[in-house]
Amino acid sequence: MEPIMIILYGDQLLKREQVHVDIEDRAYQFGDGIYEVIRIYDGQPFHMQDHLDRLEKSAKKIRISLPYELDHLEALLKELIRQNDFTQGNLYLQVSRGTAPRNHAFPKNISPVIIAYTQPFERPIKEQTEGIRAKTVNDVRWLLCDIKSLNLLGAVLAKQEAYDHDCKEAILVRDGMVTEGSSTNIFIVKDGILQTHPANQLILHGITRKITLQLADQLQIPVKETAFDRSALFEAGEMFLTSTTMEICPIIQVDGQPVGNGKPGKITRRLQKAFVQSISSNSKRQ
Amino acid sequence: MEPIMIILYGDQLLKREQVHVDIEDRAYQFGDGIYEVIRIYDGQPFHMQDHLDRLEKSAKKIRISLPYELDHLEALLKELIRQNDFTQGNLYLQVSRGTAPRNHAFPKNISPVIIAYTQPFERPIKEQTEGIRAKTVNDVRWLLCDIKSLNLLGAVLAKQEAYDHDCKEAILVRDGMVTEGSSTNIFIVKDGILQTHPANQLILHGITRKITLQLADQLQIPVKETAFDRSALFEAGEMFLTSTTMEICPIIQVDGQPVGNGKPGKITRRLQKAFVQSISSNSKRQ
Repeated sequence: MEPIMIILYGDQLLKREQVHVDIEDRAYQFGDGIYEVIRIYDGQPFHMQDHLDRLEKSAKKIRISLPYELDHLEALLKELIRQNDFTQGNLYLQVSRGTAPRNHAFPKNISPVIIAYTQPFERPIKEQTEGIRAKTVNDVRWLLCDIKSLNLLGAVLAKQEAYDHDCKEAILVRDGMVTEGSSTNIFIVKDGILQTHPANQLILHGITRKITLQLADQLQIPVKETAFDRSALFEAGEMFLTSTTMEICPIIQVDGQPVGNGKPGKITRRLQKAFVQSISSNSKRQ
Repeated sequence: MEPIMIILYGDQLLKREQVHVDIEDRAYQFGDGIYEVIRIYDGQPFHMQDHLDRLEKSAKKIRISLPYELDHLEALLKELIRQNDFTQGNLYLQVSRGTAPRNHAFPKNISPVIIAYTQPFERPIKEQTEGIRAKTVNDVRWLLCDIKSLNLLGAVLAKQEAYDHDCKEAILVRDGMVTEGSSTNIFIVKDGILQTHPANQLILHGITRKITLQLADQLQIPVKETAFDRSALFEAGEMFLTSTTMEICPIIQVDGQPVGNGKPGKITRRLQKAFVQSISSNSKRQ
């Protein structure tokens, strides 16, 4: 992986060696902050406005006041991309509540700490072509999963449990119902209907999830935003995950059982194709 | 609050300005780490071994390998206390999984980052004498609360909700049952019996909770480690919280209702007195 070059720190663009996090930064001691991962294709941010809107919503939910307007943040992020001469990968953006002597309650007169940097990453073509294996894992996370917060230990442990079983993603199950992946949203196709968990407090409201639902609508694929139980995973004809990094990626095996015929499904392929078209029109539009 | 002076960083004792957290430290991006707060009275750590044992247990549960033996860590912490000429307050100790390019699953070949520092803090005599007010708050935290992890946003939001209502602590209620406080354990006395939530995955197994149960046993106060529901809070004759920082502190009001006669109770007072004796014998023993 290439090194991080120029970093956005507050409203300054600095070299990495100039950026130092304080040990009393609340992101470091409490995970008291929020983040976004924005995809960059051909040097152009993809659905940046959606990500910044979600950042603002997350901030509001945990009562962090962003230190400047979203327009200014967007301009700084674009300058970050430009200065790093960045073309393909992820832009990581994090907002901590700020730095103060350790105490649970919100400190007074605290300024949020914003950090953003670029991370080169190729599109995962192999996984998208061949599909991946997944493992079901008990969803032990907190009950405010719609907030894109830095409290990610539950997701970390679930992802690792999947990796330990030679799987690429964990499918989280809470009280018998499938919620989402450890860093993705989960879709199944059953009886020709695309199904995914409703966008409530039990899942992150993925930008790629939203785009996928819009594409399904355009392609006249019937959709149900309803929670389904674990057994539905083993009755599904197709399954895929969505995320900013993985885009739309088929799941061909769950807990060692093949999904459908064990190959990426037709509806999945149609959505993947439409998604790639939306990437290329994004690049042209800019 | 006085400034942090000398800091333990890895196995070095450094000046604060020499310690810099990396932006890719997993504690900063995932809350992927654990911590302890150890009380220092008269320059002597209180129940340090219990805290270090719990740190080791937390580390094991999230599969962090501590970089050196607990004995060595204990020696370093004692040297930290000595170099800071530290007498009264908290020793904060944190272990992050380490620093690596951002990715949920555990990175290979990663070294944990240990940080510890002292934070002066007077014993909260006023609160312990007069008692405090508390507010019930919905427990939305994850289901592995026995791990003393850095994923503390649920606790932060609960504590702040209590503060917003002019209360000093949030009493967390999950599925109708009282679990614990946002940074404390909760006890009630009902019909002469001391009750507190059992030490399972829904609560942190507080060191002061454990000491309190031992003192109750010595004082022949009957104890039940059983979960009780929210309504029991309003039927209790006495209530108190325990924590390393607050020790044993009476709760005299919950959600605006007085607890018992609205004053600290007799059993609470007996336990407080016994606790203070255990502090002074700790100081003498060293």
